[in-house]
Amino acid sequence: MTAVPQFRIEHDLLGDREVPADAYWGIHTLRARENFPITGRTIGSNPHLIAGLAAVKWAAAAANCELGLLDEVRGDAIRKACREILDGAWHDQFIVDVIQGGAGTSTNMNANEVIANRALELLGRPRGDYNYLHPNEHVNLSQSTNDVYPTAVNVSTVFAIRELLDAMRVLREAFVAKATEFRTVVKMGRTQLQDAVPMTLGQEFGTYAVTMTEDSARLEEASLLVHEINLGATAIGTGLNADPRYSALACRYLREITGLPLVTATDLVEATQDVGQFVHLSGVLKRVAVKLSKICNDLRLLSSGPRAGFGEINLPAVQAGSSIMPGKVNPVIPEVVNQVAYEVIGNDVTITMAAEAGQLQLNAFEPIIVTSLTDSMTHLGAACRTLAERCVVGITANADHLRESVSNSIGLVTALNPYIGYPAATLIAQEALLTGRNVAELVLEKGLLDPAELDRILQPEHLANLDTSAHLPPKST
Amino acid sequence: MTAVPQFRIEHDLLGDREVPADAYWGIHTLRARENFPITGRTIGSNPHLIAGLAAVKWAAAAANCELGLLDEVRGDAIRKACREILDGAWHDQFIVDVIQGGAGTSTNMNANEVIANRALELLGRPRGDYNYLHPNEHVNLSQSTNDVYPTAVNVSTVFAIRELLDAMRVLREAFVAKATEFRTVVKMGRTQLQDAVPMTLGQEFGTYAVTMTEDSARLEEASLLVHEINLGATAIGTGLNADPRYSALACRYLREITGLPLVTATDLVEATQDVGQFVHLSGVLKRVAVKLSKICNDLRLLSSGPRAGFGEINLPAVQAGSSIMPGKVNPVIPEVVNQVAYEVIGNDVTITMAAEAGQLQLNAFEPIIVTSLTDSMTHLGAACRTLAERCVVGITANADHLRESVSNSIGLVTALNPYIGYPAATLIAQEALLTGRNVAELVLEKGLLDPAELDRILQPEHLANLDTSAHLPPKST
Amino acid sequence: MTAVPQFRIEHDLLGDREVPADAYWGIHTLRARENFPITGRTIGSNPHLIAGLAAVKWAAAAANCELGLLDEVRGDAIRKACREILDGAWHDQFIVDVIQGGAGTSTNMNANEVIANRALELLGRPRGDYNYLHPNEHVNLSQSTNDVYPTAVNVSTVFAIRELLDAMRVLREAFVAKATEFRTVVKMGRTQLQDAVPMTLGQEFGTYAVTMTEDSARLEEASLLVHEINLGATAIGTGLNADPRYSALACRYLREITGLPLVTATDLVEATQDVGQFVHLSGVLKRVAVKLSKICNDLRLLSSGPRAGFGEINLPAVQAGSSIMPGKVNPVIPEVVNQVAYEVIGNDVTITMAAEAGQLQLNAFEPIIVTSLTDSMTHLGAACRTLAERCVVGITANADHLRESVSNSIGLVTALNPYIGYPAATLIAQEALLTGRNVAELVLEKGLLDPAELDRILQPEHLANLDTSAHLPPKST
Amino acid sequence: MTAVPQFRIEHDLLGDREVPADAYWGIHTLRARENFPITGRTIGSNPHLIAGLAAVKWAAAAANCELGLLDEVRGDAIRKACREILDGAWHDQFIVDVIQGGAGTSTNMNANEVIANRALELLGRPRGDYNYLHPNEHVNLSQSTNDVYPTAVNVSTVFAIRELLDAMRVLREAFVAKATEFRTVVKMGRTQLQDAVPMTLGQEFGTYAVTMTEDSARLEEASLLVHEINLGATAIGTGLNADPRYSALACRYLREITGLPLVTATDLVEATQDVGQFVHLSGVLKRVAVKLSKICNDLRLLSSGPRAGFGEINLPAVQAGSSIMPGKVNPVIPEVVNQVAYEVIGNDVTITMAAEAGQLQLNAFEPIIVTSLTDSMTHLGAACRTLAERCVVGITANADHLRESVSNSIGLVTALNPYIGYPAATLIAQEALLTGRNVAELVLEKGLLDPAELDRILQPEHLANLDTSAHLPPKST
Repeated sequence: MTAVPQFRIEHDLLGDREVPADAYWGIHTLRARENFPITGRTIGSNPHLIAGLAAVKWAAAAANCELGLLDEVRGDAIRKACREILDGAWHDQFIVDVIQGGAGTSTNMNANEVIANRALELLGRPRGDYNYLHPNEHVNLSQSTNDVYPTAVNVSTVFAIRELLDAMRVLREAFVAKATEFRTVVKMGRTQLQDAVPMTLGQEFGTYAVTMTEDSARLEEASLLVHEINLGATAIGTGLNADPRYSALACRYLREITGLPLVTATDLVEATQDVGQFVHLSGVLKRVAVKLSKICNDLRLLSSGPRAGFGEINLPAVQAGSSIMPGKVNPVIPEVVNQVAYEVIGNDVTITMAAEAGQLQLNAFEPIIVTSLTDSMTHLGAACRTLAERCVVGITANADHLRESVSNSIGLVTALNPYIGYPAATLIAQEALLTGRNVAELVLEKGLLDPAELDRILQPEHLANLDTSAHLPPKST
Repeated sequence: MTAVPQFRIEHDLLGDREVPADAYWGIHTLRARENFPITGRTIGSNPHLIAGLAAVKWAAAAANCELGLLDEVRGDAIRKACREILDGAWHDQFIVDVIQGGAGTSTNMNANEVIANRALELLGRPRGDYNYLHPNEHVNLSQSTNDVYPTAVNVSTVFAIRELLDAMRVLREAFVAKATEFRTVVKMGRTQLQDAVPMTLGQEFGTYAVTMTEDSARLEEASLLVHEINLGATAIGTGLNADPRYSALACRYLREITGLPLVTATDLVEATQDVGQFVHLSGVLKRVAVKLSKICNDLRLLSSGPRAGFGEINLPAVQAGSSIMPGKVNPVIPEVVNQVAYEVIGNDVTITMAAEAGQLQLNAFEPIIVTSLTDSMTHLGAACRTLAERCVVGITANADHLRESVSNSIGLVTALNPYIGYPAATLIAQEALLTGRNVAELVLEKGLLDPAELDRILQPEHLANLDTSAHLPPKST
Repeated sequence: MTAVPQFRIEHDLLGDREVPADAYWGIHTLRARENFPITGRTIGSNPHLIAGLAAVKWAAAAANCELGLLDEVRGDAIRKACREILDGAWHDQFIVDVIQGGAGTSTNMNANEVIANRALELLGRPRGDYNYLHPNEHVNLSQSTNDVYPTAVNVSTVFAIRELLDAMRVLREAFVAKATEFRTVVKMGRTQLQDAVPMTLGQEFGTYAVTMTEDSARLEEASLLVHEINLGATAIGTGLNADPRYSALACRYLREITGLPLVTATDLVEATQDVGQFVHLSGVLKRVAVKLSKICNDLRLLSSGPRAGFGEINLPAVQAGSSIMPGKVNPVIPEVVNQVAYEVIGNDVTITMAAEAGQLQLNAFEPIIVTSLTDSMTHLGAACRTLAERCVVGITANADHLRESVSNSIGLVTALNPYIGYPAATLIAQEALLTGRNVAELVLEKGLLDPAELDRILQPEHLANLDTSAHLPPKST
Repeated sequence: MTAVPQFRIEHDLLGDREVPADAYWGIHTLRARENFPITGRTIGSNPHLIAGLAAVKWAAAAANCELGLLDEVRGDAIRKACREILDGAWHDQFIVDVIQGGAGTSTNMNANEVIANRALELLGRPRGDYNYLHPNEHVNLSQSTNDVYPTAVNVSTVFAIRELLDAMRVLREAFVAKATEFRTVVKMGRTQLQDAVPMTLGQEFGTYAVTMTEDSARLEEASLLVHEINLGATAIGTGLNADPRYSALACRYLREITGLPLVTATDLVEATQDVGQFVHLSGVLKRVAVKLSKICNDLRLLSSGPRAGFGEINLPAVQAGSSIMPGKVNPVIPEVVNQVAYEVIGNDVTITMAAEAGQLQLNAFEPIIVTSLTDSMTHLGAACRTLAERCVVGITANADHLRESVSNSIGLVTALNPYIGYPAATLIAQEALLTGRNVAELVLEKGLLDPAELDRILQPEHLANLDTSAHLPPKST
């Protein structure tokens, strides 16, 4: 009985190494795994990236076949392997650390090796039979890491943006629903945390919906830039060793397999060294994070209490709040969203530094850019869904308390400016503050306005501009 | 003989204060100046902001007159005062610190007071005669700081963006000129600071021009967002105390006086609390900074030497480089641009934090956003012009050295892949590295290609893809 | 009649230039001013830096004289000129932009030229008579920008830190005074913005005092690192062209003139390229900023209202709050401090990037580090004083409202855990929340504790641990 | 035959939930896992944190027993369970996401539940038998998340710092070894990327060793701050519900189980809300990152080439560099370290924002601080080891090329200043640059110095200050 060999021998310019016999990855992946023992997170944990690589390899093989650079047998096998990966297979074979040196070469070689060995297997040949089908000579044909990797990253980024946009839509709709539900709930608006003038809780939640709409629009704009690829650039953008027809052809096939409206950059030398699209995208993600964080700060503030706080709204309880304080419920969902926002903002600095450090014809630091961007997009998406589904949909308003806070408010006096003048209004405000008394009461007591008129002016709905025509100030004479 | 009084008395809700008799500013400005002794830089040092404020006050007065809320005599005087400020007068009267609390209220009040007192003067009345023309009741009529200040900031930001775009155009053109001048200067391209494959110095400078073009496009997009204003929102966006026709009318007049295609935001409550446009703009400025810094890093690297460095290009000498090393000339212009870039990137974090800290219906921290954004735009503009005029236009190439570096390069071997195969090419590369010998020499010695073919393949211009048709690889068989 | 010449001619390796006859600065300063038209802020606006330069030049001249490298006549004149600058003279002659290329060379040359020309004047000779006393040969003798500039920056930084520490002390004392004043004012403590358990307002202000104490200690530690100088390193730390005794001697004289316990770094090559002390210091300043910002967030929150907010404390009114809302007073002082904090945090990123970009034997980007650090220290100092003097000292407490919020609080139930158990306490808490009723009332109603015992347990002072012995829980059995 | 139940029912204030029968975690963990589906990374992936939690629970149980608050049977079982976790068991039961709301409550409850159920098991009782041994009543006795969690985090952070210090020591030693090896290898020093004056490669590597030494010292200082704990503070620092002797006792037991010299903070209210120690630590980690990144930038620059670069040193080849360029080897190890540095710098911003966002008596955002800090420490440690073991130890020098670059250098002229004067030296430098000729040659040709003297002056070893006494400049006359 013959023992099954546990290893196969592979060779590169540094010499021979044993590779586990059942591994689809090969010697380049092995060395990279050893060289970068940084985070313990593998590139296989990023399914969009793996899909992006498979799509690019599929398109390159298709283009190479059409140009006669690759025979149909090998080309078919390569494309079948890629298709399997696109369908979710073999992601566990992508074992290089997400933070890696080499400008993505190790990621590309990991893909080349897995695809080659799976293609060999599909062709009934043993893994490692590179004389027949070679990771570099066939899978990587007409390619360089410097065009393949950025293109795969762009593809994967587009997919990730779309997922994030879906999550943002869910959150936006939750805000829209609450804006409608709270349309007539009047409350005091605040500026600088000080009581200002009346508004409605519906208007307040409406601003959150508008914010999500605007941020989505910015994200879609940023997404456009990521559709520009440099496939065909090879090493530095001059297209050395690639057939001049290859670039357009590969792009066409990549559009076909991904369904994305990708275009080839005009200046491939520039596109190969440029990571501006990621800096831009990260800037937009940071904007989304800033706004989400602001919204969550508001939600936590408005629900502060239950008694010694604003107490305007109630967030749904989703878990016990304290290991010592009975009955305490905390705003844990907004809190987790805040933290994701801080992470995204930090990631933006990481991406900025990595982008700035690019030198001459290539940015060697794209792996950390990809890792940070992916975390930002994935975590923001999870945060949006969690916020929508576990918090916003269940928010209730303390409408009576809110209405009372308006009628009791000193800020009402602002509405009287056009009728009694700023100086008289200031005196009323000061007296109300000192005595703790009600503005309306003081105005009537001083005979500044008659009760009916005062009542008409101070209708909270009118003050909040729910009915535009009703609160016109008098003309100057 | 009567002494000229040195002071006038003004009054606010905190009491009476002496104001210098010849000051156009009044008591609110005085208190703000005392409350914020932070940087020593006054808002008057930002001419675009002062112009923005004057334009908004002009437009508000025009709208108020048309609506019959303000009489023509006072309205005319206010607009004349505004026009003078727009023409550059009275900027020294804007004395509040650029970093201030109060969400811009002090800036707005400084404007109201200066305009009121100058208008009074134009009407032949003494400064401080607010019973006749009042900073709040007349100059600030139908307005709140919360709509006036953001609108003025938007206007001033658009002006600043345009200046920056002009400076970026100057720099882009300098790069275009060099790209043309160096079109046929072949050199080694590098990835990860290691010799890669040939290209031309023209291609290299061409990428810088493309970068500036793309960045300008992003900046123009960002500028669009800044054209959306909230004039008419008053305190929190509900438009309390403003005539419902006022908002559209004031916007129309503001378009007229500024010549800018401004529009009123759809949701004024959202627009009043939102500083997303500034976060976005700052993100784009950061992108510009990242790219400029990368370019300057390249220029410093390419001009390193003169002998123990890359020595590819020469930057013009603009000053002596050392107080101890005779004849040393340093890349001081790229260095100053790098530093501006770091500043802009830091400012982006400042702006991010200020934006995130906005609460409920208003962001109280817009003054630091404005200050940081203005510094970023102004300094980037100065950096672009300086880089163009004092550095790029005078750059020369060491063309002989560059051509020699190509023919001497091991990277040439990449071009032989399609002819002699990757494995053979790898062996040649290794032998060249070990022995210090020339790739072409080794290929000929081993009889891998004949001299004529080798010569054809290794034409640097072809390798750099200056003549696309010439370097087609052979078909696979 | 002879016309007074308006210009003198100076010469450098780039050729001749006209310098204004009455300028103390010379051709190197002139070129630098033209080369760096970035911010419009001159180095002369930083008095500590100018003093630091003068002190270093004084010490170098003293050391050179003692070593016989410089004659007494010239040495005396140089030192007299330096002393004048230390006493505040000639700062307007330091006209180079604060953001400049060249690693500080232009700042150093500006100093060399001003000192040389003032020394010449003191010796009765015309400005520009460099054959007699030369900016480089005499003023800069034994020096390089690369040791002079960092040393001057260190000296100026120590002075700036001391000023900041003074301001922090003022703020700390204001907090200590309030902690004492509010020692017995009970209130609800909050975690995650939700009512938690009782404490006192004195404890709350006490934490701010402790924070300032700790931050000051960190700042003093960071200051120690800045006392290490590289004077004598000359160009790259090898001390080329400097007498080996010079370094120790110059340091000794610098200690004498500055009164600071400076020491010479052990490894001058490392010290010359290192800006770690500034990264560290900026990190500590960022920490101070974070804590100050947190405190100001708290102050704004605690004073929110007057009616629809927390309303726990009142900040003194320092200016009118609104151009539209009568009687509104805003927390403008905490707001300005928040903004300074955001600026300092952004500056830290700028400094980080500039530090990281240093290459090989020198960091060329020290000017932006110095500018950012100086702004951070100066503005933080101003913020601390303003916060202390215009806000904290005038804060008052709404003690009745606070005490009521405690007795009305559901959080009181936590104190009952040891007596009635967590499950029963949870039920009480839930019932109180649903019914709006009082915890004590419900406990008595259910007969869980007798009135006297309940009263004893719920003494707010005991709960807040003002009297440690009083709130011991019962032993488990 | 009875079916084994797959679930047990647990209860909290929100109702009943099924928990997998074999899970050690319970209902609180279950809800938290559902509430925070953010990153997919569990707290169990951070072994130091889990150990920290177990140590704190062990110490609390010991203190509670000693105080008679907990009986010995339950106390023993709890401590045994904690000991198992300290020995590495049950980490897979810690399943809450690393980014979570609730200020660490879910992490604490996860620990309470796992320890309770494991203790129950050790006592021969079924999981979920909380009537006998309760996660809150017994495991969490005398504790609140608000003191337990920060204390556990401090403990885990100290362990992580120690690991990082070990890794930094390995790297430092690698630099020391190279500094020794290259002690006499002369080379050109550079400032601003321009040739400056001679030094040795040993001096250059020596600076890296010094840097690591200094950074380690800073890190040890920062570590001291993390030894200050708030155990016994309970909810907000007032120690409510804790025996007054508990705090000191629990700290003593925690010192015993951890072996760390922990101390209890003086002001527990301050300590409970303060995360200053983490901001400080992160600032120091950022400093380490900045310096590491600078070193790696240098290594990449010095090894640039092999032909069209600096070519001064050779980094060991650890993997093939290119999928298209045969024989290309890239500086992948320094590149991965650069990326870790960018991550750490970004994390610092995240931590800064989370720290600034703390409100009133607690910082709710400590989980993201912990996650970011842990990543920074772990990745920096991995980066240091990788850099040492896979790069620095194998670096070789191109000594001949380096020596030649010195003798060929224009920078040599600086050394002649004291002999021929700055003006003559400047002329020589300019002529050398224009003609490409050698400085020594020109000096001799012009008869400025005699050959023997010139030879003596230009000894590179003397210029580099390897032999201090040898390069004294002449005295001025």
